[in-house]
Amino acid sequence: MAQKPSIPKGTRDFGAVEMARRNYIFNTIREVYALYGFRQIETPAMENLSTLMGKYGEEGDKLLFKILNSGNFRGEVSAEEYSEKSSAQLASRFCEKGLRYDLTVPFARYVVQHRDELQMPFKRYQIQPVWRADRPQKGRYREFYQCDADVVGSDSLLNEVELMQIVDEVFSRFGIRVCIKINNRKILSGIAEIIGAADKIVDITVAIDKLDKIGLDKVNEELLAVGLSPEAVEKLQPIISLSGSNEEKLDVMRKALAASEVGLKGIEEVAFVLEALKASELRNEIELDLTLARGLNYYTGCIFEVKALDVQIGSITGGGRYDNLTGIFGLPGLSGVGISFGADRIYDVLTQLDLYPAETQSGARILFINFGPTEAAHCLRLATALRRAGISAEVYPDSVKMKKQMSYANAHKVPFVALVGETEISEGKLSLKNMETGEQQSITIEEAIQIIKY
Amino acid sequence: MAQKPSIPKGTRDFGAVEMARRNYIFNTIREVYALYGFRQIETPAMENLSTLMGKYGEEGDKLLFKILNSGNFRGEVSAEEYSEKSSAQLASRFCEKGLRYDLTVPFARYVVQHRDELQMPFKRYQIQPVWRADRPQKGRYREFYQCDADVVGSDSLLNEVELMQIVDEVFSRFGIRVCIKINNRKILSGIAEIIGAADKIVDITVAIDKLDKIGLDKVNEELLAVGLSPEAVEKLQPIISLSGSNEEKLDVMRKALAASEVGLKGIEEVAFVLEALKASELRNEIELDLTLARGLNYYTGCIFEVKALDVQIGSITGGGRYDNLTGIFGLPGLSGVGISFGADRIYDVLTQLDLYPAETQSGARILFINFGPTEAAHCLRLATALRRAGISAEVYPDSVKMKKQMSYANAHKVPFVALVGETEISEGKLSLKNMETGEQQSITIEEAIQIIKY
Repeated sequence: MAQKPSIPKGTRDFGAVEMARRNYIFNTIREVYALYGFRQIETPAMENLSTLMGKYGEEGDKLLFKILNSGNFRGEVSAEEYSEKSSAQLASRFCEKGLRYDLTVPFARYVVQHRDELQMPFKRYQIQPVWRADRPQKGRYREFYQCDADVVGSDSLLNEVELMQIVDEVFSRFGIRVCIKINNRKILSGIAEIIGAADKIVDITVAIDKLDKIGLDKVNEELLAVGLSPEAVEKLQPIISLSGSNEEKLDVMRKALAASEVGLKGIEEVAFVLEALKASELRNEIELDLTLARGLNYYTGCIFEVKALDVQIGSITGGGRYDNLTGIFGLPGLSGVGISFGADRIYDVLTQLDLYPAETQSGARILFINFGPTEAAHCLRLATALRRAGISAEVYPDSVKMKKQMSYANAHKVPFVALVGETEISEGKLSLKNMETGEQQSITIEEAIQIIKY
Repeated sequence: MAQKPSIPKGTRDFGAVEMARRNYIFNTIREVYALYGFRQIETPAMENLSTLMGKYGEEGDKLLFKILNSGNFRGEVSAEEYSEKSSAQLASRFCEKGLRYDLTVPFARYVVQHRDELQMPFKRYQIQPVWRADRPQKGRYREFYQCDADVVGSDSLLNEVELMQIVDEVFSRFGIRVCIKINNRKILSGIAEIIGAADKIVDITVAIDKLDKIGLDKVNEELLAVGLSPEAVEKLQPIISLSGSNEEKLDVMRKALAASEVGLKGIEEVAFVLEALKASELRNEIELDLTLARGLNYYTGCIFEVKALDVQIGSITGGGRYDNLTGIFGLPGLSGVGISFGADRIYDVLTQLDLYPAETQSGARILFINFGPTEAAHCLRLATALRRAGISAEVYPDSVKMKKQMSYANAHKVPFVALVGETEISEGKLSLKNMETGEQQSITIEEAIQIIKY
């Protein structure tokens, strides 16, 4: 036989069990988004390269998958140009389209393109794959799904409150215990301001972000290295090492940032969100965490991140408020706030904690063994009755050896098997075998429906 | 403002209403597939070009979207080669990957690649987009979804029976009246055989396929033109113009094809499927149609196609049995049977007949008007209670003018609006306005839940 065919590196096939689990994840997120009035949109896999280029930094441009123009892609590019130009320059001549790199830029493009049809605030969610020509490694793929929700066109902090409720609800449904971390970019700006280093905000947040990984001493070293004065670093100490309840932290910060208008604004925003959330009885802890900075310089208000409590893994959800989503496409001043669930990591957490519901295990709920054409014809009718009752049922299509049929049932973790021979047909019954207990009983189809239903 | 951004031609954005409708279509198909024990898989958007090339004919190769290799895609291609080679030759040097063109070839690749893990018969469904560099035109897109189900590894005609039941169930759920047309490739082979033109089967089926469009005379002309003798064309007349019930047609055909073993086999296959379906009380008509040939030369047994009865549109679903799905990847002898629902056409039929259920119209079921921070905080709690009861609810995030909030509710076709001011809060009630009737009542949240629930 020829060599086995394969798929491009960094991509994945999802088999039946993985798909059932992934659908469970996506459907749970989808249902919760919908409960809060978010509505789904989809954008094309391919965008014009003019939409994508320059939006993800120089490195990002390199990681875009570009699609060769159809037909004579060479266009006007002469052999001379071909030898002289760089690969990147040639690529932009040979390709007009690229694959979606994230859901944010297509969403921004969508909002600008359709702005005359959209009613603000616009609450959308989007669950689609994205593609990145990253070097594949464990847990990093070239094709993966993102699950984003955003509200644009509203400055209200109630949107932040709702997104935290959504996070809480989603992880409660999954049965994953999490800590929701919240911070505010304005607090970080305030900190930079009071230590007299407003231009160093990026450096400071990058350094603070490493506290967990490298410890306080190294963070201080780094702060000095980027040009902060020893006095400024000294002023930062109580802030970096802040502890206690959210209220205690907010009190300390209010004093520390008393001289910074923007800092106080950030504190009040966080205080509002935390206060509003008290009334909604979250089932997970929410914690003000000043070391939370998130890489992107893109956020301007509240930022949040979710950590699983019972599994060692990075952030499994994150988001925040941004001020200028659509400015890159010429429509300035549109504020928004969004979150993104990390489906692949959530998959790993659910797997490690063995939290998938039973429905994701099996295909059909019942398999009818095929004893021959007459019996099978009878079973077809019984299967129809079960399906009309909402029960997934299969009739084994071939009348092969019992052993083979049972092994099919086992492989698919089918919880019930029905044996319907001459006797059962004449009695109007079926022998129902519970595959877990091995117990077998002769019952009517109506009785079977009651037993098999979840 | 800068020029509006746009998307590549032949691609589409799907807004909230379109997505709700599309999800209704996909979820209905998905649910029915699952009821019959089919399990979902997904394959990557990108396949190796070696997997895709040569599988769709020369024309198909041109319609593949090819992905430029990352980084220095030029590889070893010199300027000289660049000028000498054809675009197609260069493309295969610059690109290793292409976008999925259909779901069948990736499925065949999947079966071969994972054959050691799969239990036969393997019943899978797959709902994913495919991409074709076709010239875009009305109803033809460069990105569109396919919804396929296949059973491989079983020769049993019960699989055909189940697929017809699935078709019947799906269209019953949609409320679309259809005619299911069935034929068998072996019958067509039998016809070719008895008129002594076994090598002309492709020409004959192509000509017969045009009967509806060009009429009997032109079909006969075409048959003569492809080299059939006048005697052969004469012999074909009763067969092409066959009418009556399925039983009557089968009787005529049994006589006409008495001399052809393969033809009789085809008749018996169709007879078996029709007989088995009688017991399952289909709600739609099924009709033996000898003019049904389907373009692909790929089918070897039963073939079927679904036509909507109340809308003028092409086939909205089709499929059939094939003998050698995986031979192209070196695994011969694997028979299968499959169907594919045409989601875009079904979308158009449902739209024309106005058959979408009410749930696809609106976002949330209820919008709480925002009268200010105190009222909004109270509404957050009420909204949480509704959501816990499974009701999608929104609190308008900003306390802007009533008119603006009501226009939001109208734009989203929200069926209920809640007005909760000081009075309602003190009375523990809410004013619920039915947006369709205009009726307004002051009730408790528990009463509201009963009213708002579907």
